[in-house]
Amino acid sequence: MAAMTEFNFYHPIEVRYADIDAQGHMNNAKYLTFFEQARIHYLLHLGLFRREQSFDDIGIILADVHLTFLAPVTWQTPVTVGVKTSRIGNKSMTVLNSLFNAESGEEMARAEIVLVTYDYHTGKTVPVPAEWREKIGAFDGCR
Amino acid sequence: MAAMTEFNFYHPIEVRYADIDAQGHMNNAKYLTFFEQARIHYLLHLGLFRREQSFDDIGIILADVHLTFLAPVTWQTPVTVGVKTSRIGNKSMTVLNSLFNAESGEEMARAEIVLVTYDYHTGKTVPVPAEWREKIGAFDGCR
Amino acid sequence: MAAMTEFNFYHPIEVRYADIDAQGHMNNAKYLTFFEQARIHYLLHLGLFRREQSFDDIGIILADVHLTFLAPVTWQTPVTVGVKTSRIGNKSMTVLNSLFNAESGEEMARAEIVLVTYDYHTGKTVPVPAEWREKIGAFDGCR
Amino acid sequence: MAAMTEFNFYHPIEVRYADIDAQGHMNNAKYLTFFEQARIHYLLHLGLFRREQSFDDIGIILADVHLTFLAPVTWQTPVTVGVKTSRIGNKSMTVLNSLFNAESGEEMARAEIVLVTYDYHTGKTVPVPAEWREKIGAFDGCR
Repeated sequence: MAAMTEFNFYHPIEVRYADIDAQGHMNNAKYLTFFEQARIHYLLHLGLFRREQSFDDIGIILADVHLTFLAPVTWQTPVTVGVKTSRIGNKSMTVLNSLFNAESGEEMARAEIVLVTYDYHTGKTVPVPAEWREKIGAFDGCR
Repeated sequence: MAAMTEFNFYHPIEVRYADIDAQGHMNNAKYLTFFEQARIHYLLHLGLFRREQSFDDIGIILADVHLTFLAPVTWQTPVTVGVKTSRIGNKSMTVLNSLFNAESGEEMARAEIVLVTYDYHTGKTVPVPAEWREKIGAFDGCR
Repeated sequence: MAAMTEFNFYHPIEVRYADIDAQGHMNNAKYLTFFEQARIHYLLHLGLFRREQSFDDIGIILADVHLTFLAPVTWQTPVTVGVKTSRIGNKSMTVLNSLFNAESGEEMARAEIVLVTYDYHTGKTVPVPAEWREKIGAFDGCR
Repeated sequence: MAAMTEFNFYHPIEVRYADIDAQGHMNNAKYLTFFEQARIHYLLHLGLFRREQSFDDIGIILADVHLTFLAPVTWQTPVTVGVKTSRIGNKSMTVLNSLFNAESGEEMARAEIVLVTYDYHTGKTVPVPAEWREKIGAFDGCR
């Protein structure tokens, strides 16, 4: 299990009534929405995506997600999501996410996500840009 | 890659405008919604869940998802989802899902999902019921 | 109340598990998703939007919605949505929607929606195109 | 147009990537999700719903929504939602919502929503509880 100290970046997200499903828990699909939201803020924080840009300029596409559910999230859970890059390849990166109860520090879900660097304008994969490699490598101590 | 002949159960799902994200593709979180919807219809088909029951009676909770994206789905894609159980354990099952282009047969995403048998009334895991083991085992030739 | 004979166009939509909220009913926001989906198919049916086009070419934006809930929809409800234009103005149209139980014919929700004709490429309102006025007027007997 | 001073209660909500649709704006259905989320926090604030309660205890169901879109919301918009009760009837209340750009104060959407007091345990409408009438009346100066 990951502790809440293992990440260099966290993004808090309010659970919405609309995230809860008929069984009273946060719906399984919403975890990917939370990780997506935290990922965008991670890129904003690192200056690799800017508020004035279009999402067509964001330059990543998901290839693979391994998602593990550890404890049910309810609408009362104060959630924060950790984001950390663990590997930077030629045309892909591996990003780790953990969803925590921000008060207790309990890890409630985690994911290992493979992102491919991608040009939405041409619809093709591209090499990881040098700026991404430098900034992410320096921030998360990976390569 | 899975072919469209590998499953004994398929559920067609219309992609909605609301499933498409700002980058023009089906959003990554929606794949889990599609697999969830197909899974419920698989259980209905096998008589393990009935329309008059509450979702509190459905008796499964997700533990782990390994999801692979193979090709972008757009709102024009005619989607059908295959569902197949590959393993029935003591308190868990492994279910395979593939999302296909129903016209071309192209596999566009796949997932291996571990479900834990769970009693929503008590909030506890339970052994896989004998009826589930028999019906699913007979239908998908697994155990 | 509208009867199921009052519309010239219907689009059936499967209620998804993910449309149901923590109180066991279809969530109030999802009605707009259902009306949106039916509206797109209405435009496809009339040839005013084509599958090969981008949503940036669809040419309408919502201005006003008056939505009335008549009976709760559950995941078991077989839903079909009626779409009918009642008024074509200079730069706007009024579209009526009803959500029916497709088996019983019961009207479960209705909406009156004002759409403004809009060019997403320039971000400006535009006059209702002559082709829209002709085709919709002929189909729904309005102007 | 409502000014940002007209409400006694505001709830800020972060726009998610997943709230944005294929046309780059917040999707029309999401406005109801935002109003729903703000409404729950309004009831929490007034002590009429408590975090330890179930949503089956919330005691209101939507009857009617009149929603007006004033300006497109994008993922960069810092959103806050105002909630104010304008009328308390025998078995219903009218609640006004405005969605503001929290920085500029621009009103971007508004809604007038009729809520019916409802017992989810019995599935029946009930009179507005005296506690609701007192607390809401005192807070928003309505009756």
